[in-house]
Amino acid sequence: MIRREELSKYNKEAHNIMKKRPIISYEKNQFSEKEDVIAAESPLTILVNGEEFATLLCTPSYVEELAVGFLASEGMIRTMDDIKSLSVIEEKGFVYVQLYHTNQLNEKAVSKRYIGSCCGKSRQFYFQNDVKTAKTVVSRTTVTASQCFNLMETMQAASTDFQQTGGLHNVALCLPEELVLTRSDIGRHNGLDKIYGHCLKHRLSLKNKLIVFSGRLSSEVLLKVSKIGVGIVLSKSAPTTLAIELADDLGITTAGFIRNGRFNVYTHPERITS
Amino acid sequence: MIRREELSKYNKEAHNIMKKRPIISYEKNQFSEKEDVIAAESPLTILVNGEEFATLLCTPSYVEELAVGFLASEGMIRTMDDIKSLSVIEEKGFVYVQLYHTNQLNEKAVSKRYIGSCCGKSRQFYFQNDVKTAKTVVSRTTVTASQCFNLMETMQAASTDFQQTGGLHNVALCLPEELVLTRSDIGRHNGLDKIYGHCLKHRLSLKNKLIVFSGRLSSEVLLKVSKIGVGIVLSKSAPTTLAIELADDLGITTAGFIRNGRFNVYTHPERITS
Repeated sequence: MIRREELSKYNKEAHNIMKKRPIISYEKNQFSEKEDVIAAESPLTILVNGEEFATLLCTPSYVEELAVGFLASEGMIRTMDDIKSLSVIEEKGFVYVQLYHTNQLNEKAVSKRYIGSCCGKSRQFYFQNDVKTAKTVVSRTTVTASQCFNLMETMQAASTDFQQTGGLHNVALCLPEELVLTRSDIGRHNGLDKIYGHCLKHRLSLKNKLIVFSGRLSSEVLLKVSKIGVGIVLSKSAPTTLAIELADDLGITTAGFIRNGRFNVYTHPERITS
Repeated sequence: MIRREELSKYNKEAHNIMKKRPIISYEKNQFSEKEDVIAAESPLTILVNGEEFATLLCTPSYVEELAVGFLASEGMIRTMDDIKSLSVIEEKGFVYVQLYHTNQLNEKAVSKRYIGSCCGKSRQFYFQNDVKTAKTVVSRTTVTASQCFNLMETMQAASTDFQQTGGLHNVALCLPEELVLTRSDIGRHNGLDKIYGHCLKHRLSLKNKLIVFSGRLSSEVLLKVSKIGVGIVLSKSAPTTLAIELADDLGITTAGFIRNGRFNVYTHPERITS
């Protein structure tokens, strides 16, 4: 088990994650001036081969990993070998990426809705690129109920940023016994992309890994988890119907509301044991 | 004050907002089968003059208002008079819109980052269309601290959907004394767009109104509030730095963490009195 002190040290390496600001606090029927710590948010524009590809609103930490993970999620790259060069101008919020093959996937299809049946299956992919990049997860990893509670508690306790600002989502890549990597972001998807980018950059094996998440499980979150290739996602919060349908179809175990000694399992319960 | 029973009746008119599903519950060291209520999520594709404009992932309620509000937020329309026709095919998740003027704003600029100074001011608009549609709010509405608590409590108590699914954000358009309109959505922005669409459709005056919100205040939320033209936004949750900077610049009063008899005011405190 990684010790909390180590995690908190690790998180601090991510600079720019929060800023101090003067505020007015109302308490016990009185206004008073204070200083508070606020979650940082800034735009990050990703340019691919000289063309603007996307602008993300994000916590400006681990921006290189965020850009790599986002490009992989969007189907623009599959591995780091697809990237010729990548440079970050942090103070301006720009990432310049040169790819070897520009038409890895059709750029124009990124936000095009996918209409029609998918090989006769029930999949409800709504974006064309997701049809090409989301994949059924085959994972034999299992986790016990007490490991679920332990991973969630450790991740939340380690996130001093969240405790200070109340405005960040936490994501952790884990083995059943311990946290491997934690990332925070004001945007739920960005946290997952930072994890994805790190895995690609360091060629981390995702076998036996799972994802622990502080936010809600929406369809977008489930699609990202399937692209990363992890078979279990544990959430502190609620799922949506579409997320459950996708998880069911993509072979992903989902559990939610992991708190106070209780949780719910929505799909593929065989990977959670007592 | 609108009575809670009325609000709960009102919310129920929004069908498809949640669905029952079988789940496995873990509690007191045991797994058991149950039925749970899950927040509905589905894709909604908006086609403008025959071309695909955007696909939103949303709670499929008030989709016409959502489409109208979204088009206004994106600068495609200013009033209902810009719309020649609008038809919803609910079961397929499509909204077909015909506009009189297709080039109200440049469609291609919708997601293009705005680079450069904005009339020498400090505004950090990152999308080109926001520069044209976000406006400084001039509002003389004020609200007392106890009204802030009352509005937040009433909105949350009225949302039976949230209580059941735990997966929805609530937004309310309010007068200082009472809720006028509440909307729920799995996406924070969609809830605001549903409010915006309703106001445009029914030509509601926004003078003296404020917005109460269960979610975090990000820059996107603040830009939407400014486009709607409301001068006060009250949140149960945390703001980001960019949201505060925009609110400061756009003349919007922001308060957060409204719970347990306490809250914080981040910008333009003159509109909140004791």
